[in-house]
Amino acid sequence: MGAGPGDADLVTLRAARLLASADVVVHDRLVGAGVLDLLRPAALRIDVGKTPGTSSSQDDINELLIELSGEYDTVIRLKGGDPFVFGRGGEEAIALARAGVEVHVVPGLSSAFAAPLLAGIPVTHRGTSHGVCVVTATTEMGASTNFERLANPDITLVILMGVSRRQQIVDQLRRGGLEAGTPVAVVQSAASAHQRVVRGYLEGLAAFEVAAPAVIVVGAVAALDIGADVLVRDLVSSS
Amino acid sequence: MGAGPGDADLVTLRAARLLASADVVVHDRLVGAGVLDLLRPAALRIDVGKTPGTSSSQDDINELLIELSGEYDTVIRLKGGDPFVFGRGGEEAIALARAGVEVHVVPGLSSAFAAPLLAGIPVTHRGTSHGVCVVTATTEMGASTNFERLANPDITLVILMGVSRRQQIVDQLRRGGLEAGTPVAVVQSAASAHQRVVRGYLEGLAAFEVAAPAVIVVGAVAALDIGADVLVRDLVSSS
Repeated sequence: MGAGPGDADLVTLRAARLLASADVVVHDRLVGAGVLDLLRPAALRIDVGKTPGTSSSQDDINELLIELSGEYDTVIRLKGGDPFVFGRGGEEAIALARAGVEVHVVPGLSSAFAAPLLAGIPVTHRGTSHGVCVVTATTEMGASTNFERLANPDITLVILMGVSRRQQIVDQLRRGGLEAGTPVAVVQSAASAHQRVVRGYLEGLAAFEVAAPAVIVVGAVAALDIGADVLVRDLVSSS
Repeated sequence: MGAGPGDADLVTLRAARLLASADVVVHDRLVGAGVLDLLRPAALRIDVGKTPGTSSSQDDINELLIELSGEYDTVIRLKGGDPFVFGRGGEEAIALARAGVEVHVVPGLSSAFAAPLLAGIPVTHRGTSHGVCVVTATTEMGASTNFERLANPDITLVILMGVSRRQQIVDQLRRGGLEAGTPVAVVQSAASAHQRVVRGYLEGLAAFEVAAPAVIVVGAVAALDIGADVLVRDLVSSS
């Protein structure tokens, strides 16, 4: 199940209903605290990603899910964002199915789209960007993503988990032909009370004072700030 | 506001709460009927996209929204999917703000990600796809998208509104280097009782018997069918 970008108000009706009836939830550290408040008080909560570096391996998580499925009626594997967009949900579902466990997949708002929106940035905008490409800086196989090939001034680039590799991203995008003055925005802690947006240009990205978790937006739309300039406001603060 | 891919169960808690209190909703034809049932019975409903070809122009819609905002406290502009992912939400928000109207943007599940998920396709999958690119076949400026540049065997390509341009898409992706045997899936009427998934290979895409609205997925992940092969099922039919 996808928990969305953080704010409990941004989970789906389906997710909220299922959370309210689950026996166990196995969750990542990116899941917002408010989302866990949607659980029954008696539900068992297992955090498998508390500290990066000491977090459980994927095999351990698969084993745990299979074991819990044998003991409880409804086990929810809750992930930040969407389970099928960099969530490794496909891998977990396959492992469970191979073990004979019945699995349902519930989508969630991916921060790839929700973080820019909550920062006032439409990832597509007429005459500015006619598409959006979403990648992580490091692939799930551990290799670095080749950004040179992704340099395309007509398509917005959204980079997840890229904060520590910003210099490499800039160098490769520049080699691929993106101009130094291409607008860039970094949305830190999206959909939380700590949300912070830092804007600038590609050439300066590596020097932005930002910390993970953050979503990096590269392209002309990153200069739009519909939140500040034109009175558009998200409802995070007022909800 | 984004209404998500169709099923009312897939709107966010925030959207559901706001729909239940709105005075007026101005909606597109892609918004699921069940979503409109979340409105107060007394709410005014205005369909601005009933028939393609006779649907209102963007300027007419902007004018209507500005006019309604002067007459009612809460006007919701409801769009299928997400308002900032091919929803022209940025344009409408800017037009409203220029007219002095206060605007809040509420995200929704984009069918770019939800349609593949509901068809059992993770858009990213370790060792198979380390990113996802989302485009429409025709840009919002009316020009055709250049797919040659988007051919990348490591990145899943999701194409919205591409059914009528499939031959051109195939030709350009082949010229860009994608193999004829690249897996392809078309998800028609996602998140509805009429959802239908047709699978095959890039070379045969133009001959699939499919109709709009549909989402086209190109890349190795399109061969995954986590729904059928491994007992993973979405909850559309059971909810």
